[in-house]
Amino acid sequence: MIDKLIETIEEKQAPIVVGLDPRLNFIPNHIKDNAYEVYGKTARAVGEAFYRFNKEIIDNVYDLVPAVKPQIAMYEQYGPEGLEAYIKTIDYAKEKGLIVIGDIKRSDIASTAEAYSNGHIGKIDIEGNSHTIFNQDAITLNPYLGVDSINPYIGNCKVYDKGLFILVKTSNPNSGEFQDLDIGGEKLYEKVGHSVNKWGEEVIGKRGYSLVGAVVGATHPEEAKVIRKLMPRSYFLVPGYGAQGATAEDLKGYFNEDGLGAIINSSRGIIAAYKNEKYRYEFTEKEFALASRKAVIEMKKDIEKIL
Amino acid sequence: MIDKLIETIEEKQAPIVVGLDPRLNFIPNHIKDNAYEVYGKTARAVGEAFYRFNKEIIDNVYDLVPAVKPQIAMYEQYGPEGLEAYIKTIDYAKEKGLIVIGDIKRSDIASTAEAYSNGHIGKIDIEGNSHTIFNQDAITLNPYLGVDSINPYIGNCKVYDKGLFILVKTSNPNSGEFQDLDIGGEKLYEKVGHSVNKWGEEVIGKRGYSLVGAVVGATHPEEAKVIRKLMPRSYFLVPGYGAQGATAEDLKGYFNEDGLGAIINSSRGIIAAYKNEKYRYEFTEKEFALASRKAVIEMKKDIEKIL
Repeated sequence: MIDKLIETIEEKQAPIVVGLDPRLNFIPNHIKDNAYEVYGKTARAVGEAFYRFNKEIIDNVYDLVPAVKPQIAMYEQYGPEGLEAYIKTIDYAKEKGLIVIGDIKRSDIASTAEAYSNGHIGKIDIEGNSHTIFNQDAITLNPYLGVDSINPYIGNCKVYDKGLFILVKTSNPNSGEFQDLDIGGEKLYEKVGHSVNKWGEEVIGKRGYSLVGAVVGATHPEEAKVIRKLMPRSYFLVPGYGAQGATAEDLKGYFNEDGLGAIINSSRGIIAAYKNEKYRYEFTEKEFALASRKAVIEMKKDIEKIL
Repeated sequence: MIDKLIETIEEKQAPIVVGLDPRLNFIPNHIKDNAYEVYGKTARAVGEAFYRFNKEIIDNVYDLVPAVKPQIAMYEQYGPEGLEAYIKTIDYAKEKGLIVIGDIKRSDIASTAEAYSNGHIGKIDIEGNSHTIFNQDAITLNPYLGVDSINPYIGNCKVYDKGLFILVKTSNPNSGEFQDLDIGGEKLYEKVGHSVNKWGEEVIGKRGYSLVGAVVGATHPEEAKVIRKLMPRSYFLVPGYGAQGATAEDLKGYFNEDGLGAIINSSRGIIAAYKNEKYRYEFTEKEFALASRKAVIEMKKDIEKIL
């Protein structure tokens, strides 16, 4: 998937991923009311509203961006019916040619990781019948358990051409509590970066980038320069632009000199654009997806400045 | 929940948790065939078979143990229908008076952690209607993102009397890759232990133990002694006994001098006992849950020796 990701980034001239992290207060009333009318104020209704919301956003941005990143927590919190909306969103995004990065941040020992890996990026076997469950193109993972917790995913990356983005330096305010600890002159996130780099060496694509990438928060531009150098062949998935406070200027050091190597995520800033002071007078609530389209176009321009 | 956990451990004289981690090859043929007949070789059939399997095990062990720990990955890999079986298993175990520890090992930034927290140990609000989705009594979490990624769970622990077990030192062979790194004379897992201890200080129960516990693998008895000292008020959830190789002798240092402080998990060793050389001649496949009961009784005796 990494070669396809790079190709699509070049084709659309946009190293941008749209975070599909719906929340009830982002969903326009006409969509919510419709769902409540049919299903009551239930998890099923929320799932239907989320899917309809996502679908309209996808319809209005799929020609502009290479990828979307649904955050599974937003769906999982509503149980099985939330996850049905997650799967329908993935399937629809793929129908429209988008690459789907599932933001799942799972972590477990090998025998358990194998189950997650088969469900999310591999196949499930039921008495010789093979089933695809979540069908994401790539997923995010947490490295705290070490290499044997990651290997079951790398196996499926090879077989099914899938990708991983492993947490190295996260965007949240307290990310430094453990990630910045000093280990003989290096920070923990650097140690993790070295390991992730090594894990990815055996799955390098035609364009020189690995199927194993890293999550590096946009809120840490200085750290990103260090990480960029120590893992030159890893693609960075970069959350934290926009709503979390990072600007385009902060993002320069996340890219390699070839202008590749990073894909910048924006969630709220795009999917809830119609609620933003900047767009709310231009677009009605029913035009929420047009506001999202405009927010993508402006984000694209903003990031073009630094490339 | 921590006071109730301790009370039930004392009442049943068993610091034991049964890991409900079903796999298709653990499920007796009569249960699988029945499910395939009704639903075909589908995820729905697997979910039904898992639930029937779990239910029969619960019926045969609920009077012996205080708690069960379903591993969500085993269900999640089958998608929404797998998670329905996960939820049904939780609800049934609670009906039988068991404490349910959801082994979910989630990790994410605060706004996302809030969604996981509400779904798993809190409540979901849909237009003023409050819904309980997963209803676990406690869950496992990964600490790599730091305190702000944990706070949304501690909030729900206070409101709903729920518990957390945060990964400190995991049972897998490569757990040392990052967890054993040396940070100015201390290992990373010790640093994490100090933090988890601090996070739990504001939610200490009547018996002196915190709602915030730690996951400490049974495969690391020397490390456990160190961690036991630095976090005396944390309950340890201890995986790795049995199938992963740890014996009762290894477990002594996980307990405090009051004989409390640890709950030992066994999954395969109990739920797939009927497949074990030790029990397979005594129990038929249809008596799988009786084999599980016997395995629990023997595990209880084994652990009693060291207390």
